[in-house]
Amino acid sequence: MPLILNPAAVKAATNMRQMVDLIDAGVREQAAGHVVVPPRMNLETSNGFFRVMPAVMRERGLMGFKIFNGSVQHGVRYLIGIYDEKGGELLALMDAAWLTGARTGATTGVATRYQARANSSSVGVIGSGLEARTNLGAVCAVRDIRRARVYSPTPANRERFAAEMAASLKIDIEAVDTAERAVRGTDIVVIGTNTTKQDNAFAYQGAWMEAGQHVNSIGSTGGKLREIDPATFVNAARIVVDSLHQVEDECGDVLETLERGLWQRGKVSELTALVTGAVPGRTSDGEITLFKSVGTGLQDVVAGFAIYEEATRLGLGQHIDDFLEHKRF
Amino acid sequence: MPLILNPAAVKAATNMRQMVDLIDAGVREQAAGHVVVPPRMNLETSNGFFRVMPAVMRERGLMGFKIFNGSVQHGVRYLIGIYDEKGGELLALMDAAWLTGARTGATTGVATRYQARANSSSVGVIGSGLEARTNLGAVCAVRDIRRARVYSPTPANRERFAAEMAASLKIDIEAVDTAERAVRGTDIVVIGTNTTKQDNAFAYQGAWMEAGQHVNSIGSTGGKLREIDPATFVNAARIVVDSLHQVEDECGDVLETLERGLWQRGKVSELTALVTGAVPGRTSDGEITLFKSVGTGLQDVVAGFAIYEEATRLGLGQHIDDFLEHKRF
Repeated sequence: MPLILNPAAVKAATNMRQMVDLIDAGVREQAAGHVVVPPRMNLETSNGFFRVMPAVMRERGLMGFKIFNGSVQHGVRYLIGIYDEKGGELLALMDAAWLTGARTGATTGVATRYQARANSSSVGVIGSGLEARTNLGAVCAVRDIRRARVYSPTPANRERFAAEMAASLKIDIEAVDTAERAVRGTDIVVIGTNTTKQDNAFAYQGAWMEAGQHVNSIGSTGGKLREIDPATFVNAARIVVDSLHQVEDECGDVLETLERGLWQRGKVSELTALVTGAVPGRTSDGEITLFKSVGTGLQDVVAGFAIYEEATRLGLGQHIDDFLEHKRF
Repeated sequence: MPLILNPAAVKAATNMRQMVDLIDAGVREQAAGHVVVPPRMNLETSNGFFRVMPAVMRERGLMGFKIFNGSVQHGVRYLIGIYDEKGGELLALMDAAWLTGARTGATTGVATRYQARANSSSVGVIGSGLEARTNLGAVCAVRDIRRARVYSPTPANRERFAAEMAASLKIDIEAVDTAERAVRGTDIVVIGTNTTKQDNAFAYQGAWMEAGQHVNSIGSTGGKLREIDPATFVNAARIVVDSLHQVEDECGDVLETLERGLWQRGKVSELTALVTGAVPGRTSDGEITLFKSVGTGLQDVVAGFAIYEEATRLGLGQHIDDFLEHKRF
């Protein structure tokens, strides 16, 4: 009886704290060698792409896929399927538009849990879209955040973000009119934009970094996107990424930093090393730390499972008859 | 409104002649360079596999995936998803256990259409399972077949095959007690077994080939499986395969022939070359021809589309609400 979850059900079944914990556990399982996540397949279509990202978690007993298709120009559809890895049953099929934002946020939550100062209480946000929202929510799930500031170029967008997120997260949020003002004096920074460095300006500059800050950058997942400048990577004492291979291949910010010869791999670690303690999140309250994320198939499958579990607990979604034969040979 | 099709609906929506025609057209589109079919992903699970095969057909305006998981020991589940390639909508999700057999049959139908003598009227079948059934059905869809003989080691199985297939295909079918007797004097041969060369005996031997015969072999899709001996490849004047790369990589019969130094690549062509006329099916009525199939993601997606079209025409299956957001940026 697979469970079908539409966008409203997925959103209602999002428990950010639970999702952060499950992704944390999933990354530990990956570190222990029990996760299979091949590089994603990217098929070109007439007017966009058809992308396939499967993952298997042998310890958790979970497997699944995310398939997303379309283009930034024409819009994108995201589908996640979750299976029981031992028995092989299809457990759920769900929309993953919101979920992709939520899992990115939850992954930032995992990094922030280990990298940010324990007494962090303020956040500066650049961006006002889905990712900015889910990432701020995840940071609030792992630190006792009291206040935030947000900048987004369109005043109405940042005002709406401040009003809506203050109500949902129960914290003070102020909309401000420059990016620098949003991040100045805050403990944690979240940059979640879709910028391409128009007018040669990055959404965020390393020159703004302050002692003790932890910075999360989760936009710039494509080669042409830019949101943080090379100085951001230079000024960070420690950098954590979700997938070293992928950020060096796909992330526009890292590609530009590599091109300029400013990518210092020696201070870059993967999230697996962070959660297992192989590398420290920080060694002093004064260090500047950076998390750079591009997203992995593991995060999708774990997040889909988190939604499935919470939806089942809450009785959300629509069960359909099991339509897959279990063929015996 | 994606259409959900369970095994009964898929079977009821199988129109073999239509499926042969669609796969023929799909292979032509592949030959013209409009199809994207990457090598399949094969993820190892605790007790089997999780395999993902996507395909995009830009001319037909169709894309999709087959995902199948499990093991021969524990049983396998097959899922096919079909999308509109231009608009990006998910059109259908369906069981693909029967369908995998049907598309293998339909592909044999395409090969047989070009390779078998036009006046072929008899078929020898080795095997009595799903593949033997769908392949015989497909041969009957492309040639005016009047009679068949079938061999399978278990008498009850071959008797049931003869009775059931005679009723459904409206031809005479006789169950016989040796493989050689099944194929002797027939115009077309179908070998669809799951044998591993127990007791050093292949299911079929090249020594049995007769002038003018066309032979289809569709078992031995894994490296350890064996159904036709190296002499079969040696005695065939012309060999067609659905994917040269895959048969040389995955097909046990071809692997053994390669090992023994008997694989003559010069007489091997791909199905794309056959359907476009780049190579002739045969140049005389006396030639012995062979089709060796392992299955491709293109065949799955086209067959899934054929089922979707026929199910829609017949009003079969269950529509569920569109549960995927079309996310705009």
